[in-house]
Amino acid sequence: MAVMNISKTKEQYKSALLENVIPFWLQHSGDEEYGGYYTCLNRDGVVFDTDKFIWLQCRQVWTFSMLYNQVSPKEEWLNFARQGAKFLLAHGMDQEGNWYFSLNREGQPLIQPYNIFSDCFAAMAFGQLYKATKNPKHLQVAKKTFDHILQRQKNPKGKYSKAYPGTRNLQSFALPMIITNLVLEIEHILNQDLVTDTIKNGIDMVTNKFYRSDLGIILENIGMDGNLYDSFEGRLVNPGHGLESMWFIMDLAEKQGDKKLMQKATKIALQLIEYGWDQKHDGIFYFMDVKGNPPQQLEWDQKLWWVHLEATIAMAKGYLHTGNKACWDWFEKLHNYSWEHFGDQQYGEWYGYLNRRGEVLLPLKGGKWKGCFHVPRAFINYGKPWRR
Amino acid sequence: MAVMNISKTKEQYKSALLENVIPFWLQHSGDEEYGGYYTCLNRDGVVFDTDKFIWLQCRQVWTFSMLYNQVSPKEEWLNFARQGAKFLLAHGMDQEGNWYFSLNREGQPLIQPYNIFSDCFAAMAFGQLYKATKNPKHLQVAKKTFDHILQRQKNPKGKYSKAYPGTRNLQSFALPMIITNLVLEIEHILNQDLVTDTIKNGIDMVTNKFYRSDLGIILENIGMDGNLYDSFEGRLVNPGHGLESMWFIMDLAEKQGDKKLMQKATKIALQLIEYGWDQKHDGIFYFMDVKGNPPQQLEWDQKLWWVHLEATIAMAKGYLHTGNKACWDWFEKLHNYSWEHFGDQQYGEWYGYLNRRGEVLLPLKGGKWKGCFHVPRAFINYGKPWRR
Repeated sequence: MAVMNISKTKEQYKSALLENVIPFWLQHSGDEEYGGYYTCLNRDGVVFDTDKFIWLQCRQVWTFSMLYNQVSPKEEWLNFARQGAKFLLAHGMDQEGNWYFSLNREGQPLIQPYNIFSDCFAAMAFGQLYKATKNPKHLQVAKKTFDHILQRQKNPKGKYSKAYPGTRNLQSFALPMIITNLVLEIEHILNQDLVTDTIKNGIDMVTNKFYRSDLGIILENIGMDGNLYDSFEGRLVNPGHGLESMWFIMDLAEKQGDKKLMQKATKIALQLIEYGWDQKHDGIFYFMDVKGNPPQQLEWDQKLWWVHLEATIAMAKGYLHTGNKACWDWFEKLHNYSWEHFGDQQYGEWYGYLNRRGEVLLPLKGGKWKGCFHVPRAFINYGKPWRR
Repeated sequence: MAVMNISKTKEQYKSALLENVIPFWLQHSGDEEYGGYYTCLNRDGVVFDTDKFIWLQCRQVWTFSMLYNQVSPKEEWLNFARQGAKFLLAHGMDQEGNWYFSLNREGQPLIQPYNIFSDCFAAMAFGQLYKATKNPKHLQVAKKTFDHILQRQKNPKGKYSKAYPGTRNLQSFALPMIITNLVLEIEHILNQDLVTDTIKNGIDMVTNKFYRSDLGIILENIGMDGNLYDSFEGRLVNPGHGLESMWFIMDLAEKQGDKKLMQKATKIALQLIEYGWDQKHDGIFYFMDVKGNPPQQLEWDQKLWWVHLEATIAMAKGYLHTGNKACWDWFEKLHNYSWEHFGDQQYGEWYGYLNRRGEVLLPLKGGKWKGCFHVPRAFINYGKPWRR
């Protein structure tokens, strides 16, 4: 394999983002009749399902706002973000301002607001959009939503929780991890003390509680006492999730000028990718069991687009900030694997779901969980220098 | 491929059941300290998780009771059923008699009674156990649980439902299908009119409402108006589920001497297996989308043990009752595929989860969903003549 050239790689991601990925979503995802976005798109961009999932509606608003704010102030991009936001404001929340999980095409609620991540992505979307529009409504929604998240964070599923209280109280990695990234995303609308406290707590949770130095991995669920609970949930490892959190931590370390934290995050990221890498067929496993038992997730051995993108961001940032050669080697390996397996020369964008061998499992470009988010977010993170 | 011999095949299943499958569970699954059964067993029978899932606890009580009632009145089998029942009676229900979804090893509740199928398998277990024990407590629990199922059937998830009422009201195939089988299982403890009405309604639901003659398949979810709703849930097909329901219908047709219904069930079963068969790698797909879109289930292309067992029962019964040669051909094909891919010469029992190519995906013999149920139930159904 030829050694990659950093500036050439950046050019490649810039053109992939601006000439391939973004045009794909602009062309295929707008619902001009009811507003919002289609996200269920076949290989060639044809819509195969019209339901609207709040995670993905919000993430797409964020993406186009972010492009406007960080890459170029194109009215087309801001208008595309605005049209999604308009649909969300009209239909996305219940009367208390909690975000539904999904709506039908017309905007009627399908699934109740049981999922706190809908709110997380809504706060992220309206916070980023507000940067561009300075519209006080956008500010207000972002703030109110963030308040709800803080109120709900101790019991995020509320009445929809199926866990029997008290028998095995676990805390889950996803929420502190997302909140840590979220406060950085919407720092401009938050009280600075809240930002500082949340970041401090988030770094501690991620790097000291969920990260287990004895095992060299991040657990997805730990007891309230911080211990590993020997159960399906307690043994679960999601290497991509851990890698994503490590570049969040690197961003915080960069912001704080904390070199020690940067070194630690880089070290953990390398541990995670070595742990999660499939020695037989390449790529990173989706789920693993820390004791090597069969995971309950049947999709455990599949190779998912976002896992590989998050890993690549972590390796890019790790290399950029520490110069660690192992990060660059992994960046190259991930880059080559991803373009070979996830890339689609013919119709653009990336496939989302491959089987263990790296063959396309589902030919979709977008679905219930894959939208206009991870691919553009990653490409822009690889190529910081060409941003505004 | 050599043409199979029916009586030799029956002998093979008899010995596989009595010398391999049942000894595997007797040897590895009993929790002698806390009662109940371990179901999370590795390839060699070693326990890898101790949580107790009500579906599987109940199904194992059913299996050992059924063996006692139908194969041979061995005290060892009845005692093994009794010990599971004792654990279930002590820990399985909340104060209203609703069945939890799961317990920890000691019997403390982990997951609330949100899942009506826990109750279905409990009624089935205690109904079958009562046949053997004549213990009025077992009768009472089976009856009360069945009453709860009937009360809950219009809104099975109750307060745990995440669907927003009214936007897209779907009815699901699983419940009427299971209830139709359940009333036949526990007929001896029910009012005859209730049995007759439930069976009549169940046959209508399965063969006229969820079965779509225009498409030649059974849908997993239809509107309350019986229509196909073009959404992930509405387009979902689970060929194994449909095949399972067809042998339930064949049992009803046999009982009622209804040859027309037997022919119809056989015809539908053949349509389903032709629809669900993987032409490229053999085996039956787990999930499909009736419009050929990507299903949301990432495990859609995997080959599951129960799917192949239910299909084989349907083909065995279809051949037995109608003499349709296509059923026998499929029986042979399924038999050969299954023993080659699911069978484990070294440690016995069957693997549960294969990838699309038929390679072992998870090396477990039991887990959260696979217990001592489908394999023995199928083997005994293939070999009716040697039962008591």
